[in-house]
Amino acid sequence: MSTAFENIAIMGNPADAAAVETVAIAVDYLNKSGVQVIVSEQLPAPQPPASHATTEDTALPKAADLVISVGGDGTMLYAARNASAHGVPVLGINRGRLGFLADIRPEEIETGIAAVLDGDYLSESRMLLQAEILRDGATLHSGVAINDVVIKRRETARMLDYRTVVDGVFMNTHAGDGFIASTPTGSTAYALSVGGPILEPSLDALVLAPICPHTLADRPIVISGRSTTEVEILNNHDTDADVSGDGELIGHMRTGDILRIVAAERKVELIHPPGYNYYSVLRSKLYWGRDRRAPQPEQD
Amino acid sequence: MSTAFENIAIMGNPADAAAVETVAIAVDYLNKSGVQVIVSEQLPAPQPPASHATTEDTALPKAADLVISVGGDGTMLYAARNASAHGVPVLGINRGRLGFLADIRPEEIETGIAAVLDGDYLSESRMLLQAEILRDGATLHSGVAINDVVIKRRETARMLDYRTVVDGVFMNTHAGDGFIASTPTGSTAYALSVGGPILEPSLDALVLAPICPHTLADRPIVISGRSTTEVEILNNHDTDADVSGDGELIGHMRTGDILRIVAAERKVELIHPPGYNYYSVLRSKLYWGRDRRAPQPEQD
Amino acid sequence: MSTAFENIAIMGNPADAAAVETVAIAVDYLNKSGVQVIVSEQLPAPQPPASHATTEDTALPKAADLVISVGGDGTMLYAARNASAHGVPVLGINRGRLGFLADIRPEEIETGIAAVLDGDYLSESRMLLQAEILRDGATLHSGVAINDVVIKRRETARMLDYRTVVDGVFMNTHAGDGFIASTPTGSTAYALSVGGPILEPSLDALVLAPICPHTLADRPIVISGRSTTEVEILNNHDTDADVSGDGELIGHMRTGDILRIVAAERKVELIHPPGYNYYSVLRSKLYWGRDRRAPQPEQD
Amino acid sequence: MSTAFENIAIMGNPADAAAVETVAIAVDYLNKSGVQVIVSEQLPAPQPPASHATTEDTALPKAADLVISVGGDGTMLYAARNASAHGVPVLGINRGRLGFLADIRPEEIETGIAAVLDGDYLSESRMLLQAEILRDGATLHSGVAINDVVIKRRETARMLDYRTVVDGVFMNTHAGDGFIASTPTGSTAYALSVGGPILEPSLDALVLAPICPHTLADRPIVISGRSTTEVEILNNHDTDADVSGDGELIGHMRTGDILRIVAAERKVELIHPPGYNYYSVLRSKLYWGRDRRAPQPEQD
Repeated sequence: MSTAFENIAIMGNPADAAAVETVAIAVDYLNKSGVQVIVSEQLPAPQPPASHATTEDTALPKAADLVISVGGDGTMLYAARNASAHGVPVLGINRGRLGFLADIRPEEIETGIAAVLDGDYLSESRMLLQAEILRDGATLHSGVAINDVVIKRRETARMLDYRTVVDGVFMNTHAGDGFIASTPTGSTAYALSVGGPILEPSLDALVLAPICPHTLADRPIVISGRSTTEVEILNNHDTDADVSGDGELIGHMRTGDILRIVAAERKVELIHPPGYNYYSVLRSKLYWGRDRRAPQPEQD
Repeated sequence: MSTAFENIAIMGNPADAAAVETVAIAVDYLNKSGVQVIVSEQLPAPQPPASHATTEDTALPKAADLVISVGGDGTMLYAARNASAHGVPVLGINRGRLGFLADIRPEEIETGIAAVLDGDYLSESRMLLQAEILRDGATLHSGVAINDVVIKRRETARMLDYRTVVDGVFMNTHAGDGFIASTPTGSTAYALSVGGPILEPSLDALVLAPICPHTLADRPIVISGRSTTEVEILNNHDTDADVSGDGELIGHMRTGDILRIVAAERKVELIHPPGYNYYSVLRSKLYWGRDRRAPQPEQD
Repeated sequence: MSTAFENIAIMGNPADAAAVETVAIAVDYLNKSGVQVIVSEQLPAPQPPASHATTEDTALPKAADLVISVGGDGTMLYAARNASAHGVPVLGINRGRLGFLADIRPEEIETGIAAVLDGDYLSESRMLLQAEILRDGATLHSGVAINDVVIKRRETARMLDYRTVVDGVFMNTHAGDGFIASTPTGSTAYALSVGGPILEPSLDALVLAPICPHTLADRPIVISGRSTTEVEILNNHDTDADVSGDGELIGHMRTGDILRIVAAERKVELIHPPGYNYYSVLRSKLYWGRDRRAPQPEQD
Repeated sequence: MSTAFENIAIMGNPADAAAVETVAIAVDYLNKSGVQVIVSEQLPAPQPPASHATTEDTALPKAADLVISVGGDGTMLYAARNASAHGVPVLGINRGRLGFLADIRPEEIETGIAAVLDGDYLSESRMLLQAEILRDGATLHSGVAINDVVIKRRETARMLDYRTVVDGVFMNTHAGDGFIASTPTGSTAYALSVGGPILEPSLDALVLAPICPHTLADRPIVISGRSTTEVEILNNHDTDADVSGDGELIGHMRTGDILRIVAAERKVELIHPPGYNYYSVLRSKLYWGRDRRAPQPEQD
């Protein structure tokens, strides 16, 4: 009897003891289910018959038809960026609390994985951003991101001055702590902290959000996922800025450099156990529907 | 020689003296251009050869291939709801300042209209919302809106408790002053005042935004324009709520009633003079790029 | 042996079964402790020897040296407004969850009350607002509030235009859903939902906050508790507005009327059980320190 | 005939050509008025009889009974920090637009200074913050600030985890981009960009505001100006943070270090020309009362 996925690669955070322990449980269960398992070389060597990969995590998914990420949403972003480069879907097992992306809880490992191996799962595509830093027309640095691409001034006490251009049309000049371009997936991460909206994951749209803007009317704007956004650092204060994707450094920018952001052609494919429900995750993660503030007065 | 539009209906706010004066100028210019002009019966009788319509404004666009709205964005919303019912496009002339929707300024009337009659214009489709209030499964009231559909509690000092369902899936329970479903067009109107994002006008998406939510994590969410949103008033405090579309009353709701909101199949077609640029309108209306707050300290 | 308080009046929400039950427990305990208890006539008749007051709740505190409120923060506001008129302090027992104001939980009734009767309690003064609606210089309506005084437009789909004057100096013109003047106590209630700051309860300051302001730069402002605030409804759209104090209607305002708000000379005295800690209440009520959102990515 | 101030020190930004030119005009006018003028050594040498100071700007005010700052609010903050150390008041001349602090416009130099020399001026005290970074109980760095003291993580893509203690009582744990303690003066500067309230300048209160907090309920809180605030960097991610006062670096903090912030005993004394009005400055700087957004629809 065959399973929906026959070769599964596992990634996890080796520094997280709970994750390492969960990896061992997952490997054991997958072995028993007759699946070929290869485990990231960053993780402790598993028991045979799982094989321990000596390849880089960037290449690991090549040999797999599913990547399982064990850890929090940070690990999941890392695994998904790697998996998406090979067109391989990703399933996330959390160490503890439910994640936005990693949605099998430790106590559900066996039932969750069993369902997925039986072909009983939900699959969805998520947008991936492609970011390039251009100097004098040439690409200096590039990177991808599932959540967001962020520009921040390096000298923390000064403002960043920048201008935005969407599809070749000038949008605005801005001053503040920086700039976020977020996918729907990232709209519940950093972009939410700067006052951005939540975007339903299936929307083909991006949020462009200023970070602590100097002008109160400089608000988050939602644009098409097919648009090209360009951000140019303006010639003030000898600016030097950091660009990061999903919190990992992509490169530095200086005055006159341009950051170009588009949705990548490739997508990230996420696998969810049956019963997955985006709004239910939102309610849980954002404490929706639980309010301890006093109700407004009722007659007494 | 023929013009791009040969029969033009004009609507405007009869209570606004500046608008009435601007109507007269526009009628005069159109007459001279050889266009058939019919003027809303709500406006003062124009000079011949313009004809004064004895029909309702709801029927007026039937005889026209273009509706011109003279006034602010409120007049434009009114004209556009009527025009869209007949599939007729709308052009807006403002009385004074630039509007989000009515973007020919009084001093540009002749050059703006001349360009449009010459076929030199931009045309774009905007989403229209269809709202129905349902009681026991039957439609009690219905209406359309170009900006937004809003629910607010009638007893102003109490909170409204409601639950939201999107495409049949429960989203959340909410408490607060009310609820807004806004089109991209409406995203710069009331929805912006409650902390909603700006949506590029061409996006096929809606903002669902709580008004003064009791729970700080109850944030605006952007959903697909193809989704069906249902809002149910919950059984607290004998709630009675007003539902309005673009600020005009659609009907009342009480506990257990459901408001169902979808994008209408028909669209609103807006005509802009050449050179129209959405971001330029945003910059002007929101004072973008002008900041009188003190810059952060530079060394002195 | 005498107790710190010898005559205690009890108020509660008669429509709340849990509160009524809690009242019975409290009365029973107080009786056993040798305290004279009088119970609001709105509540079911208690067992002797507690006496059932046939007076109005407004007069009930006159015979007491402590008022105990049983219910949520709404009941507490009601009891405290009445008690403060007689200079009598208030202690709050909640029906279930911790309140901002009513901070003895049902399971702590006996230990909490015992400590208070032993004189082991914290006492603090909270500001009370005095609001008057003036027409042609004469007072039309007046009221007091512990949380906030709120103006809202009655016609829910229209904006309220108003101007604010502080200590005789013009502050600003505003347009939006309305206006809140909040005490520090009320800063965690409705004012928080419109983006207001939290004010430490002991501050001699008020928050003036616009509700859903049309202008994005119209932000909450904190002024001295010794200032006089006047709000005038402007002559637009035949406005009729509701003024409420702590969510109870004070009266209507129309164009040209002025709402004058000052801190009342009298204060509300709140009694807390030992161990009371304002920040602890904030952390509990606002879910501070509990965050289910995914942490930003850590290397994996 | 004597003037209200007889020895005036002038500071300005030497890199700002407009400021340098304005300094020359001011010096010339003061000389003619018979006032002794000393000009910061950072500025170009003035014409006699003004003397060019060879002292540091920190010592310059010692010889003066008034400091005039020529430049924007940044220059004014710099001048005022120096002047306050010697108990000398400060008057600000702007280069162009009105500032929050520097409120004599270039075209008003002669009339503004004449009035001040005649003793026709307003004087007000503003709070100054004193910040100390403590490691193992010893002061590592310290500084003062008129606007705000800010902590930000140096590694821009990571969150800062910190805890706050007010007057020895634990307030909360926080995660986000950083932390601001702002005076009323600074409440219209950076604190406003993170969602803080405006504080009337005379309030004896501080705003404590999280920067882009991870938890949506982590809101700005206003505390007494007599409170001591301590912020401790928590032991996550090998944090290294920058502390700045008014945008100038005070020092670095690492895990376990404590930043202690109190209002300094000394105050800053600001001199305003007659007619100064704080709300008028707010209206001008924040574009209050000017709203180009479309009004909500009126019937047409």
